[in-house]
Amino acid sequence: MRCILVILVSISAVWSLSLKREKLSSVSPPDGNWTTQWYEQQLDHFSYGVQQLTFMQKYLVNIDHWNRTGGPIFFYAGNEGSIELFALNTGFMFEIAPEFGAMVLFAEHRYYGSSIPFGKNGYVHKQYYQYQSSMQALADYVELLAHVRQTYEGAEKSPVIVFGGSYGGMLAAWMRIKYPHVVQGAIAASAPVAQFTGLTPCEKFGQVVTHTFALQGQECVQTIRKSWDAINKMAATAEGRAWLSDAWRLCKPLNSTDDAKNLKSYLSDVWTNLAMADYPYMANFLAPLPAYPVMAVCQPMKFLKDEPKEILLEIFEGLSVYFNYSTTATCLSYESSMPSSLDDNGWFLQSCTEMVMPMCYDGKNDFFEPQAWNLTEFSETCVKKWDVRPEPYKMEQMYGGRNLKYASNIVFSNGLLDPWSSGGVLEDVNESVVSVIIPEGAHHLDLRSSERADPKSVIQARDVHKANILKWISEYSNSV
Amino acid sequence: MRCILVILVSISAVWSLSLKREKLSSVSPPDGNWTTQWYEQQLDHFSYGVQQLTFMQKYLVNIDHWNRTGGPIFFYAGNEGSIELFALNTGFMFEIAPEFGAMVLFAEHRYYGSSIPFGKNGYVHKQYYQYQSSMQALADYVELLAHVRQTYEGAEKSPVIVFGGSYGGMLAAWMRIKYPHVVQGAIAASAPVAQFTGLTPCEKFGQVVTHTFALQGQECVQTIRKSWDAINKMAATAEGRAWLSDAWRLCKPLNSTDDAKNLKSYLSDVWTNLAMADYPYMANFLAPLPAYPVMAVCQPMKFLKDEPKEILLEIFEGLSVYFNYSTTATCLSYESSMPSSLDDNGWFLQSCTEMVMPMCYDGKNDFFEPQAWNLTEFSETCVKKWDVRPEPYKMEQMYGGRNLKYASNIVFSNGLLDPWSSGGVLEDVNESVVSVIIPEGAHHLDLRSSERADPKSVIQARDVHKANILKWISEYSNSV
Repeated sequence: MRCILVILVSISAVWSLSLKREKLSSVSPPDGNWTTQWYEQQLDHFSYGVQQLTFMQKYLVNIDHWNRTGGPIFFYAGNEGSIELFALNTGFMFEIAPEFGAMVLFAEHRYYGSSIPFGKNGYVHKQYYQYQSSMQALADYVELLAHVRQTYEGAEKSPVIVFGGSYGGMLAAWMRIKYPHVVQGAIAASAPVAQFTGLTPCEKFGQVVTHTFALQGQECVQTIRKSWDAINKMAATAEGRAWLSDAWRLCKPLNSTDDAKNLKSYLSDVWTNLAMADYPYMANFLAPLPAYPVMAVCQPMKFLKDEPKEILLEIFEGLSVYFNYSTTATCLSYESSMPSSLDDNGWFLQSCTEMVMPMCYDGKNDFFEPQAWNLTEFSETCVKKWDVRPEPYKMEQMYGGRNLKYASNIVFSNGLLDPWSSGGVLEDVNESVVSVIIPEGAHHLDLRSSERADPKSVIQARDVHKANILKWISEYSNSV
Repeated sequence: MRCILVILVSISAVWSLSLKREKLSSVSPPDGNWTTQWYEQQLDHFSYGVQQLTFMQKYLVNIDHWNRTGGPIFFYAGNEGSIELFALNTGFMFEIAPEFGAMVLFAEHRYYGSSIPFGKNGYVHKQYYQYQSSMQALADYVELLAHVRQTYEGAEKSPVIVFGGSYGGMLAAWMRIKYPHVVQGAIAASAPVAQFTGLTPCEKFGQVVTHTFALQGQECVQTIRKSWDAINKMAATAEGRAWLSDAWRLCKPLNSTDDAKNLKSYLSDVWTNLAMADYPYMANFLAPLPAYPVMAVCQPMKFLKDEPKEILLEIFEGLSVYFNYSTTATCLSYESSMPSSLDDNGWFLQSCTEMVMPMCYDGKNDFFEPQAWNLTEFSETCVKKWDVRPEPYKMEQMYGGRNLKYASNIVFSNGLLDPWSSGGVLEDVNESVVSVIIPEGAHHLDLRSSERADPKSVIQARDVHKANILKWISEYSNSV
């Protein structure tokens, strides 16, 4: 079912994106500049029967610049992957640590990376994975912070600022919302807190992807929009499939319409990932990408054609920028968009319980092949795979969606190239829950290390972050 | 172990107190003026493995005065007992419903009254009772409110005001703190949100009890303070025990020093309960009581004596007001302070997990027999009985204790006669989290029906409640 693939890969893209980029910048991001620690974490924070059960949660600490007499703790609320990946790719926190005299602390999210309860069995049976939820993860962070405060002399009364990008950004915002007595403020970057049923129309996400491509010209959009039919036509005959397999240098030739379905699914993911990864400098995402990759991809896809083969040859040229920018690929592997690592398992599970983010496409206001959002079908897939049923209204009920008027001390930042901005907070909510828009920004560009090619808007966004952090810290200092 | 008894009985007194009073007032409280409903509630809101498991939660609804076009929902966050008891004794909500055009809704707390998951097995094994926690209960209320909004036409956009007294008051405040997008404001009466380790000195509670008695003269306080030694002296010999058993008309004669221990424990509970129940009108608590029962009890206990027997005869006269005001008791049953109903089981369990409220006495600043707070000993009792260990810092970590500067729209009311005011919020926190003090008030007097004998301070407190509710509702109406 395509929707699942799109959702999963898009979200997993979140970190892959941030994390696999080569170091090309003048300011190098920190590289393992921390100590790795473990905390014996309670498995269930809300019920008391299993309180004795624990798991080892990984966290990373850097105290190089920490001012032990009142310096703040910069805390990263880990999301769906190994915590090192986030630490390596949230350079902003390390960059500003010296001027704030901050301890830098990254906590791994339960059931990801190395913090998997029940080890290998973690995803085997519901009995083991039932404790995977955002609420439990937030409670982990609260508990871990209490531990760190006790462990590091001088940290007991340090103010805590929580950071996060994407799902981590949602967690950062929710942590401030639910535990304002624990964290003094939150930088929530590209956090789609409203990407849920009833809060954001399901077609919005695909429209933003399309919009990002449209900035490179309607011809590029038109070409992609026409490509689905072209693929369908080719895939309908053995001869057509053979031609496409050959023309696109597919690693696995198309043998059926199911194969064609997978190919289209892969393509949808690619366009989505490109919009998310549309950074102003060379980066390494699912594949290495040039600066402004959407521009590069659209370059050869601007010639409006009607003939299916011609359209598909154009598409392949653009696609090559994505799958073969390094020019070392021998063939195009369209089945690899969803690797089956534990991390993907984790997000698949979460999207089958609480992180239900409806996506749909109409092919008119977006360039995707039309597809409705089908909760029933999705639900059946979840029951089959995980023996759980999605709860589409759960996150709104728990955290309030965009209804945050009583929250405080949160900066929501969103890049307008980033499809996830569709579910983000794009307007100030009140005087201390504010929105920062980065028109030229892709997915949480502001959390990355400074780069020469950074647009002015992301530099300004980082200044807004710093000003708010300063305000929150002084507010806190005046109150203790 | 005495501490457990004191804590439990004192807390269970909370509702017994409110609930068993005879109707003597001009304004009768409502009597079964509601429909009883059931909602199939999720057992675990924070983990997803057991989401299919549910239990039937009882709730009571009165829509006699409800304005279906925008009228508010007055929601009572049920505490540790049958929900009918609270509905029968929170007359204030019913009294003001007509002027607000409000729906009145009372929800039973899981594992109390008739809302016991796993039925008879509810308290048999940890596997069944692990889901008993304040966090789960709050999530029940959020879920139930969503259900009611969908079920009652016109309720979808109604503002919700949450009420509660004692533990229910804690839940009301915490509900607003954790789910401000669900409830627009909270009336938290006699809510000891800070009666936890490190937030309130353990001796404070007993000092307030003593203070309430001291208002009737230091002689009364002195007499009680001297009584412990007097009992110890009598209990040391068979002859003394026989004398005391006879003089106090004990149902079960004192046969050992253990019996004497139980008798002292009972006495401690009685003095505590009297302070909590020190209402300005006749009421029926563990026993029927006259108006201003502490005054009545102290009346015969004002003659300073030195001789043990004389002291104890005085005490017995005062005690008679408590155990035999109805003059129908044939003997004094000192073993009955802790009935073993399910409700008490529930609170015992909760105090062994999250509701760990340290109490201690020094006999100098209070009139109790000196006793330290011994967490280790308490903990062992909990492991033995429930196979769980207390988490003394849990509630502060979850809800913030008195550190509520970022909360909004809560009125904390406290009567100064009420020992639980020791753990209450007694000062304004910010402009919308305010404190109302009722100097002449006992335990959540303000939530009870109006009575002729009500002191001016409680009438004023109710006016503060109404003004705030009005403000919260209009604030909400302006925002939707």
